[in-house]
Amino acid sequence: MRVRVIENAGFCFGVQRATKLAFETAATTQGHVFTLGPLIHNPQVVQKLKDEGVEVVTDLNGVEEGTLIVRSHGLHPTILKEAKAKGFRIVDATCPFVKKAQSYAALLKKEGYQVVVVGDRQHPEVQGIEGYSGGNILVVACPEEVKKLHLKTKIGVVAQTTQSLSNFIEIVDELLKSARELKIFNTICGATMVRQKATMDLSRQVDLMLIVGGRNSANTTRLAKICSDADTPTYLLETADEIQPEWLKDKKEIGVSAGASTPNWIITEVVQKLESLAA
Amino acid sequence: MRVRVIENAGFCFGVQRATKLAFETAATTQGHVFTLGPLIHNPQVVQKLKDEGVEVVTDLNGVEEGTLIVRSHGLHPTILKEAKAKGFRIVDATCPFVKKAQSYAALLKKEGYQVVVVGDRQHPEVQGIEGYSGGNILVVACPEEVKKLHLKTKIGVVAQTTQSLSNFIEIVDELLKSARELKIFNTICGATMVRQKATMDLSRQVDLMLIVGGRNSANTTRLAKICSDADTPTYLLETADEIQPEWLKDKKEIGVSAGASTPNWIITEVVQKLESLAA
Repeated sequence: MRVRVIENAGFCFGVQRATKLAFETAATTQGHVFTLGPLIHNPQVVQKLKDEGVEVVTDLNGVEEGTLIVRSHGLHPTILKEAKAKGFRIVDATCPFVKKAQSYAALLKKEGYQVVVVGDRQHPEVQGIEGYSGGNILVVACPEEVKKLHLKTKIGVVAQTTQSLSNFIEIVDELLKSARELKIFNTICGATMVRQKATMDLSRQVDLMLIVGGRNSANTTRLAKICSDADTPTYLLETADEIQPEWLKDKKEIGVSAGASTPNWIITEVVQKLESLAA
Repeated sequence: MRVRVIENAGFCFGVQRATKLAFETAATTQGHVFTLGPLIHNPQVVQKLKDEGVEVVTDLNGVEEGTLIVRSHGLHPTILKEAKAKGFRIVDATCPFVKKAQSYAALLKKEGYQVVVVGDRQHPEVQGIEGYSGGNILVVACPEEVKKLHLKTKIGVVAQTTQSLSNFIEIVDELLKSARELKIFNTICGATMVRQKATMDLSRQVDLMLIVGGRNSANTTRLAKICSDADTPTYLLETADEIQPEWLKDKKEIGVSAGASTPNWIITEVVQKLESLAA
């Protein structure tokens, strides 16, 4: 049995930066340090941060003082304003690419476009983008949703940074059927596009794909979907413990990919476990 | 045998306007009246105009005086300037939708976009658009051509007004693979989109399609291609005389469509000839 891991697996730039900032902040700060929701969508890393004193709270009610680390997905500007008004120290760990998506959405709104965000309505990144664009935008997850919209003829588009390019293109195709003027910022981050393509390519060459990462991570679950859509047997797992020996039966080549918020040490543990089972 | 003609067959707005202007100019002008290339891409209408005194010349060399009717496809601004410098009276019969495509291309260039025109490089409309954008633009006819281009990341797109929407969308899809910012003006005229869709729909319901219009008309030949791509037997003809009785053998339903530059009287003659052959 051979195990093949995609190149560039593990933390993307934004996650690496956010995690580093959070550990540094925890190490150098006296008093309460917290995030609103998890810093990144990886429960194991969030647990390690908790061990270092970074608490996860769900809202600002009841929090009276301390340091708020703005998580990688960004934060709705209204909540940020509220946090500042309450006197919290702010450490901004928003991914720089997410910040770009926020500012492009705001620019499109200012230029008079009807703003469409390609992404998941419930995702904190999308809620932040909506906030920075001043609200009143459309969020679409798939081309079918576009057909139900009341669209204007002048439309501006940005994407959640971890969307799949093919879905983004399909949505643009639908918009082009009604828009006369369409201004698009492809804000899908480069690392996401490279990772998705490498994962798809690898899935076509192996008998089984294992996608390592948080079940609450949109980009991780999307990688799993890309592989299963390509008809390759695929499992999503958060840690090496979850590997079932029967998954590997009669498999000659196993591909491993991981979300942007999956740390290298978990990927290494998965590979080691696979190799020990094969021995 | 039943003959079905698409709704809205015949002259589009721009062709109707240009033709009316040309006949009026011929009727009210003393002296030489001419166009640079045919006014519209329909040889029969151009012959009628010639009978009324509108000459077709290929370039301005040797023309010393008179009235230049700018044809529906527009004119390169350098040539227009030359014509004005020579003291010609100018009657502008450029289609208003073509003028829009010209000004949007110029706007995109001014805003710093690399301008891509979806269209046929040799078509006078595209040459005019290129002129108004100040030159140095890319012209692509199909998605395969996009793959060969050296593209920047900030791209602006307009279309020749008679392009097919599906080809336009496919080209945008290719551009989206490299562009980070894409500003698109869908300058395909509404009448073209309606005509193409009606023609495609009809071609799926009949045994034979006849497309009536100039062989030198891009939009007419595109209608024929749409039908043959849908696997419906299709003939392109300029006049009723070209109909071959054997085309109709065993055919129950015959669809008729026509380019934007095909006059109603030719469509009527085609339908009458079909009905007489069926009787």
